Amino acid sequence: MSIAVIYGSTRENGNTEWLTEQVINGLTVERIYLREYNILPIKDERHSEAGFQEVLDDYNVVIDKVLQHDILIFSTPVYWYSMSGTMKLFIDRWSQTLRDKDRPNFREELAKKSAYVIAVGGDRPSIKALPMIQQFQYICDFFGMTLESYLIGKASKPGEIQIDTKSIAAASGMNSALKKQLASN
Amino acid sequence: MSIAVIYGSTRENGNTEWLTEQVINGLTVERIYLREYNILPIKDERHSEAGFQEVLDDYNVVIDKVLQHDILIFSTPVYWYSMSGTMKLFIDRWSQTLRDKDRPNFREELAKKSAYVIAVGGDRPSIKALPMIQQFQYICDFFGMTLESYLIGKASKPGEIQIDTKSIAAASGMNSALKKQLASN
Amino acid sequence: MSIAVIYGSTRENGNTEWLTEQVINGLTVERIYLREYNILPIKDERHSEAGFQEVLDDYNVVIDKVLQHDILIFSTPVYWYSMSGTMKLFIDRWSQTLRDKDRPNFREELAKKSAYVIAVGGDRPSIKALPMIQQFQYICDFFGMTLESYLIGKASKPGEIQIDTKSIAAASGMNSALKKQLASN
Amino acid sequence: MSIAVIYGSTRENGNTEWLTEQVINGLTVERIYLREYNILPIKDERHSEAGFQEVLDDYNVVIDKVLQHDILIFSTPVYWYSMSGTMKLFIDRWSQTLRDKDRPNFREELAKKSAYVIAVGGDRPSIKALPMIQQFQYICDFFGMTLESYLIGKASKPGEIQIDTKSIAAASGMNSALKKQLASN
Repeated sequence: MSIAVIYGSTRENGNTEWLTEQVINGLTVERIYLREYNILPIKDERHSEAGFQEVLDDYNVVIDKVLQHDILIFSTPVYWYSMSGTMKLFIDRWSQTLRDKDRPNFREELAKKSAYVIAVGGDRPSIKALPMIQQFQYICDFFGMTLESYLIGKASKPGEIQIDTKSIAAASGMNSALKKQLASN
Repeated sequence: MSIAVIYGSTRENGNTEWLTEQVINGLTVERIYLREYNILPIKDERHSEAGFQEVLDDYNVVIDKVLQHDILIFSTPVYWYSMSGTMKLFIDRWSQTLRDKDRPNFREELAKKSAYVIAVGGDRPSIKALPMIQQFQYICDFFGMTLESYLIGKASKPGEIQIDTKSIAAASGMNSALKKQLASN
Repeated sequence: MSIAVIYGSTRENGNTEWLTEQVINGLTVERIYLREYNILPIKDERHSEAGFQEVLDDYNVVIDKVLQHDILIFSTPVYWYSMSGTMKLFIDRWSQTLRDKDRPNFREELAKKSAYVIAVGGDRPSIKALPMIQQFQYICDFFGMTLESYLIGKASKPGEIQIDTKSIAAASGMNSALKKQLASN
Repeated sequence: MSIAVIYGSTRENGNTEWLTEQVINGLTVERIYLREYNILPIKDERHSEAGFQEVLDDYNVVIDKVLQHDILIFSTPVYWYSMSGTMKLFIDRWSQTLRDKDRPNFREELAKKSAYVIAVGGDRPSIKALPMIQQFQYICDFFGMTLESYLIGKASKPGEIQIDTKSIAAASGMNSALKKQLASN
């Protein structure tokens, strides 16, 4: 079993990444920083005669990295009460991959994976990020992927997450859960 | 009073746009199709010493159009249970405008506006788009903007919205409400 | 096909009942006013050796009425952002019926039914009653029952619902949908 | 500062109570088991001429106990994706106390209090109990009461909560937070 961390942050070494470090401490993971890739907004061509046209960007590179792993950790700051636009652009493109002849088993492959969500926000995230968690659950349900657990941290200024003892403890618990999951396979 | 419609669709004349037409039937509006603009993901520089750097894209053109109106209609397809990435990229950038010295009254100006949300999705949207509605409410609450009402249509294939009689009736009601709001000012 | 309306209101002829009248206008229904029955809180005895003990109240009379119908309309005022305690007491007892030897097909029978929810609240219910709608959806999902649609009205003082044109229009739409559903079977 | 724990469980020494014990370990609290009191469903008489009539049950005894404390811990099993009917009956009656001349400062008194929610459910509660958490938040918002934090455990059979290491760790964190809150006053 292997782990990919998919980062939706736009700032390096921000609060979300710091909290994610606590979660993956001691684990081997592939880090995928979406901000380092050029991923264009999906153009909905599901219903056009020719279907989806090839897009000249980095999306396929990223999705192929993601598909190599069994456990997906979605690590995103909370921007306006949902995942970052950077993360959303990536996930929106899944609709294209669902019809991609080069990746015919996309849905089945995701169904086998486990997902974790790590999110950090500044405006009462333990309540106001819950709709985002529900959306991740719906996404996972669509694919039959298991949303193992989620972790919501509270921070706004740089470094502030380091005093959110509650999230840090939960991160440590998520770290143990990941180790157990890896060991059981 | 004047109305801006902010379109997050990526497909022309799709279901969301059709339903939106029912809502704005007979009204003068400015149509802003976000897909026609180049809007880059926000780079979170709230906490960097130099602050947000100027971004060479079309965002400011769009936000300045939006700010000229009193009523904002957010019209978005439901992509993966939330607004389209195209719409999200635009809203994410509001964080930058909040610190933009050239638009110092951004928050106060939005506080005076009314918002409407029109969304169309394919996968049980009357339930699964509710977290998105809650997010729009949180966004409006942040600014003190009034979320007047929302409308969720059900459609997947092109044209399918035209048999969603429930949404069409609700669109007609939203049309009346807009006319009443315009008349009262 | 036949319809039961399950009323959770505690006040006669209140706003919720008025709105419900618009929905069932011209239809034959059985009206079940929960306030007219003595329904005790469930006592969780799922795990006690003897199982659930018989309860001397009116619950079984009510559930047997409900089970005779194909379409269930749950009509409840919004009390503290969820269904009335009166309605909740009734639904809580379903856990007991799930283990009732005298009603062995409870789950299967509910799976065949359609549900509608009508709720009226005073404090921004179009947003703040959404968690309640999600809960009704989860309840329906548990049984495999279809939540056909829901209707949220806004009213606080007696009679106030009669100026909520949006809900009245939606009630009329729900009335048509019910007639269509009845005709199709 | 003092703490009241308001129990909505209907079973003695169940999973919810066990998890709550971890939270209040070492703290002095007043335990209020709602099941030991006779609390009748509210009868909505807000708008009747005579107003709310006196109800011959134990509600006032309970609410007066609750009002003596600064920190309120709501401890409820998740029944059908929301609080138990027993807990709901109690909270519904707050609408009556809001108009009770003998308790004229009810709203102001609640505004000064802190709330914690502890809930245990069996059916994916980390997701499916979130609407209930949102409802508690709305209730707290109504009064201006602070919802400090919440804790969702997973258990169905008796004792099962004792293997939910994640919740137990979070309970320990809530215990520390309570101690800190008590010390700071």
